[in-house]
Amino acid sequence: MKLTTIRLAGGATVAARVDGDTAVELGFADVGDLLRRGDLGAVATATGATHDLASAELAPVVVAPAKIVCVGLNYRNHILKMGRELPEHPTLFAKYPDALVGPRDEIQLPPESDKVDWEGELAVVIGRTVRRADAEQAAAAIAGYSVLNDVTMRDYQYRSPQWFQGKTWERSTPLGPVLVTPDEMPDGAQLVTLLDGEEVQRTPVDDLVFSAVELVRYISTIFTLNPGDVIATGTPGGVGHARRSGRYITAGQTLTTRIDGIGELVNVAVAEQLDAAAAREPDVVRA
Amino acid sequence: MKLTTIRLAGGATVAARVDGDTAVELGFADVGDLLRRGDLGAVATATGATHDLASAELAPVVVAPAKIVCVGLNYRNHILKMGRELPEHPTLFAKYPDALVGPRDEIQLPPESDKVDWEGELAVVIGRTVRRADAEQAAAAIAGYSVLNDVTMRDYQYRSPQWFQGKTWERSTPLGPVLVTPDEMPDGAQLVTLLDGEEVQRTPVDDLVFSAVELVRYISTIFTLNPGDVIATGTPGGVGHARRSGRYITAGQTLTTRIDGIGELVNVAVAEQLDAAAAREPDVVRA
Repeated sequence: MKLTTIRLAGGATVAARVDGDTAVELGFADVGDLLRRGDLGAVATATGATHDLASAELAPVVVAPAKIVCVGLNYRNHILKMGRELPEHPTLFAKYPDALVGPRDEIQLPPESDKVDWEGELAVVIGRTVRRADAEQAAAAIAGYSVLNDVTMRDYQYRSPQWFQGKTWERSTPLGPVLVTPDEMPDGAQLVTLLDGEEVQRTPVDDLVFSAVELVRYISTIFTLNPGDVIATGTPGGVGHARRSGRYITAGQTLTTRIDGIGELVNVAVAEQLDAAAAREPDVVRA
Repeated sequence: MKLTTIRLAGGATVAARVDGDTAVELGFADVGDLLRRGDLGAVATATGATHDLASAELAPVVVAPAKIVCVGLNYRNHILKMGRELPEHPTLFAKYPDALVGPRDEIQLPPESDKVDWEGELAVVIGRTVRRADAEQAAAAIAGYSVLNDVTMRDYQYRSPQWFQGKTWERSTPLGPVLVTPDEMPDGAQLVTLLDGEEVQRTPVDDLVFSAVELVRYISTIFTLNPGDVIATGTPGGVGHARRSGRYITAGQTLTTRIDGIGELVNVAVAEQLDAAAAREPDVVRA
C-alpha cells in the first residue's frame, strides 16, 4: 500500500491511499495522524473522495513528525571508498519539523548561506510506539519508507563541531511523495539524486551500514519512537561539498530525489524572499 | 514575576504564579501554554486556587517545549582556561522534550550508560514568535530564565562525531523550578552545581560568550522560535568527565543545580527500572 498527504483548498491536509493514478481520501489529517489513530488494515479498503495524483498538491507525507532523527556516515560503499573504517555506532542528529516541505514544493535558499547542498536519503516512518525494541519489534515498528532530501547548508554545518545548525533551516527538506509499506518495497531499490537532470548520486539503498531495523533498534534504546516519527537514514557519496571545487544548489535549479518503488521528490530551489516568508503559512494538522 | 508548573492529582498540570511561599493557579495547562495563549500582564494579578510551593509537585516549567536548543562551548572563563580560542559562532544541538523531568523528580540512570555526567545551565524561555530577530526583537522575545541540567551520557555522546545521542535520554534533564521574568534576574547571578552537597561547578551566568539575546538572534536566523521554546545556554567548567579519572553520577546521589534569583533543581539519581519505565506516564499538557 502507498499512502500520501494532500493539501486541500483552505490550507488543511488529508491522508490518502494511492490507487494507481488516483489518491483516495481517508479521513485523517495526514499520514502521521493516520499512523497515530488509524488502522492500516482498515484504510486498505476504505473509500472516499478522490484526487488525480499527478495534479494534487502534496504536503510532506508526515506533516509534522514529533521526531525527525537523521543519520550520518551510513553508506558502506562510500565510507570504504574514502578509505575509512566502518563506524561501530550510528551517528545521529536532529532536524525540526518546520524544515520540511512537500515533494513538489520549492526549497528555500536562505540569503545567509551560499553553500546549500543535496543529500538524497531513504526515510523510515514509524508506525508503532517502541522503546528498547529488539530486532523483531523494530521491524514491526516500521510503517513504511519514503524519500527525503536532507538539504544542508554546509557553511552553517561546519561553523561549529555540531552539524545541527546546517541541517534544520526552515522549508529546506522535502519528504514524500508517499509512504510505501515494507511489503511493497522492491529488492535492490536504487536511490538517485539529480540536479537539473544530471545524476549526482546513485546507490542501492540496501548498502546501509545500519539498516532500517538496526536504526530503530538502536535509536529506541535512547528514547521512545512513536507513530509518525521519521528516521532519515543517511546519504551516499556524490554530495556537492565533497567535489573538488564544491558544487551547490543555485536558484532556479531543480533537485530530483528518487527511490525505486517509492517515487520522486521534484523541488525547484528559490532564493528566499524575506518579506514573503512571514506571509507563507505552514501546513496545519487539524487532528 | 515567577511562574511555575504544578502537577495536580490525576496527572494534569497547571501553570501558577509564585507569590512568596505560595503558588497561585492561573488556568493554563503549563507555563508553555500560558506563554502561547496568555498574557503576562494579566496573570500578574490573577487569582486562583493556591498551593504551598514547598510541598507542591512540580513539573518541568515548560512541560513539552516544541524546541529545546542546546548550546555547547559557551563559557568564556572555561574556554580561556583550557587555552582555546573563543568560538566565532555558537555550537548548537537539540534535545527532545521527553528528556525533561521536573525540578524535584528523579533522574534516570539507564543501564546502557555508566558515564552519566552533570551540566548545570541557565535556560532561556521564549515568549514571542521570532525569526531573524535583531537584538531588540531578541531581547523582547525572552519571557524569562530558568535552570536546566543538561545531564549527559558521555559514553553515548562520544560514540560518534555528533553529541545528540548522549544528550536526549528520556527522563534525564531537569528544568525549573520557575521561570523568572528578566526584570527580576539579579545582576551577577551565580550558577552552582552540587553533587551530594559538594560544589562541582560555579560560575557567574554573565560569563557567556554568546549571551541570551545573542543566542536568540543567532538561532532565529536558522528557524522560528516560538513561545515555550527553550534554549539551554551551555555549561561552565567542572563537569565530571573532564576530571583526571572521570567522575560520574551514581544511583542514590543528589544533583543540585542552583542559580541566584531563580532557585534550584534537586534531583536524586536512580537506576532505571526497565519494567517500571513503561508504566510511568509522562506529563500531559491538556491545552
